[in-house]
Amino acid sequence: MKEIEPDGLRESCTLYMKGGKMLRPSLALITAGAVGADESLAVDFAAAIEILNVYTLIHDDIIDKDAMRRGGPTVHAKFDTATAILAGDMNHSLSVLIFLSASGLGDAMSVRIVELLEKTSRNICEGQFYDYAMEKGKMPCTLDNYLKMAEHKTAWLYAAAAQGGSIIANADKEKASRFFEFGRLLGIGFQIWDDVLGLTADEKELKKPVGSDVREGKMSFPIIHFLDNCDKLQKEKLLSVFGKEIPRNMNEFRQMFIDTGSIEYARKASERYAEGARLLIPKLTSNTYYAQLLSGLVDFSVQRAY
Amino acid sequence: MKEIEPDGLRESCTLYMKGGKMLRPSLALITAGAVGADESLAVDFAAAIEILNVYTLIHDDIIDKDAMRRGGPTVHAKFDTATAILAGDMNHSLSVLIFLSASGLGDAMSVRIVELLEKTSRNICEGQFYDYAMEKGKMPCTLDNYLKMAEHKTAWLYAAAAQGGSIIANADKEKASRFFEFGRLLGIGFQIWDDVLGLTADEKELKKPVGSDVREGKMSFPIIHFLDNCDKLQKEKLLSVFGKEIPRNMNEFRQMFIDTGSIEYARKASERYAEGARLLIPKLTSNTYYAQLLSGLVDFSVQRAY
Repeated sequence: MKEIEPDGLRESCTLYMKGGKMLRPSLALITAGAVGADESLAVDFAAAIEILNVYTLIHDDIIDKDAMRRGGPTVHAKFDTATAILAGDMNHSLSVLIFLSASGLGDAMSVRIVELLEKTSRNICEGQFYDYAMEKGKMPCTLDNYLKMAEHKTAWLYAAAAQGGSIIANADKEKASRFFEFGRLLGIGFQIWDDVLGLTADEKELKKPVGSDVREGKMSFPIIHFLDNCDKLQKEKLLSVFGKEIPRNMNEFRQMFIDTGSIEYARKASERYAEGARLLIPKLTSNTYYAQLLSGLVDFSVQRAY
Repeated sequence: MKEIEPDGLRESCTLYMKGGKMLRPSLALITAGAVGADESLAVDFAAAIEILNVYTLIHDDIIDKDAMRRGGPTVHAKFDTATAILAGDMNHSLSVLIFLSASGLGDAMSVRIVELLEKTSRNICEGQFYDYAMEKGKMPCTLDNYLKMAEHKTAWLYAAAAQGGSIIANADKEKASRFFEFGRLLGIGFQIWDDVLGLTADEKELKKPVGSDVREGKMSFPIIHFLDNCDKLQKEKLLSVFGKEIPRNMNEFRQMFIDTGSIEYARKASERYAEGARLLIPKLTSNTYYAQLLSGLVDFSVQRAY
């Protein structure tokens, strides 16, 4: 495949392609192995999944006005919004093109995988729209709506990584659906834990400012719980900075979220989804090595420090 | 295929799907017919081409800060930038999904068409980046660079529409390449003529303000020629509004572009590309009816009033 032509566009397309936890491509590879295929068969698909992820991150960062990602500036912050829109679009297409140019999996399977990639993209768009609608007060901020948002915005990509890996390994329809469900549960657990980290993590580990969710007015899982359970004074305190700035006294805010039980409630919810994923593992593979890898991915997703 | 879920996103995705000249989908259908297939075979591909076009228009309108499109407000103007980014992304995916869900052309052909759609998207991104780089002074504003930009940004989609229509009609590789070349020449001619209309058209026919290219600081074909051929006073006059506003005395500016020969130079260049496309027609089809349709498309593209 030919290289991206204009230098500035190539640089912006690849800005996030260093660092990153690589959980989604790992899930694709591990899944293929768990079903009994050589993991290398799923390498192109895993690359496509990660590039698709990067496309949605670049655009999401514009929408959320985020300045930091993966330990460096976001694409729109380093370049500008126009460049970031085009870099996201480019990665969207490259995700499919890289998969198609390299795969050699045969036409029937290629069509299924491309359809899965594009369905994932459309579901992420819907999820990002829900997220935005909740922030703008156009959609009620309930935990139910949060879960709908997280399922589209985050969990679909995990679900697709797992399902795609299994499809490439020739899993039957029922097994492929189970892998989808495994990824979905893992993904929701990951997102809720991500919200917890966004309010409580060690900034050096997180590699982005703790409290940006407060600045953005992000309706995260613990924040929604907090707003449902706090007293009048606590609410006023949050709303004085919410959607405006990162609180200078972030430690006080952290304690406030702990006092209402919101952090613990979110941690337990995250663990509940993770446990749902863990319980599926015996139905996914009889190979102990891959079962351990899958289980390790779940543990990391809901216990990680960054 | 399921409907787009959030109402606001559905509304923004479909905002441009009324009006429009429909030249690109028409080209896809006519090409399939010209090669000898039933035009209806190419209907899903034609829809995909138009939706792909709409995705790139929505994002381009954000980048160009355009307020009007197809006789109404642009997506980012009616909603906001975040919604427009997501609506574009959504249409990008829907273009491929609608083609795949409806086509029934077989897996091998589906893979070729999806690859063509995504290659088109990537080339348009590169073209939009060149356009932007020229406007921002990061790339020299020469007619050569303009043609490189127009080939990527505009002509690729015409070329892909024609090539895809011929592929669906089972054209051999050589014939498919000729159709690509026909679309490429037609597309460059179309874009140069579009630039002429942007400075000289009747506003009621054009359905958007004449002179927006001046406000945007757009390095269009006649403007590049003008800057190369005007005197010092004329240059100062253009630069006083260029990239800032639509001149209130647009008629005077129009006359100035005519005086330097820039309008005529552009008109002739557009006609030259059109003539190149016309000369290919006898090699594309022996069917008189379809030959006339192809020729009519060329004429319209470089002679239209809007």
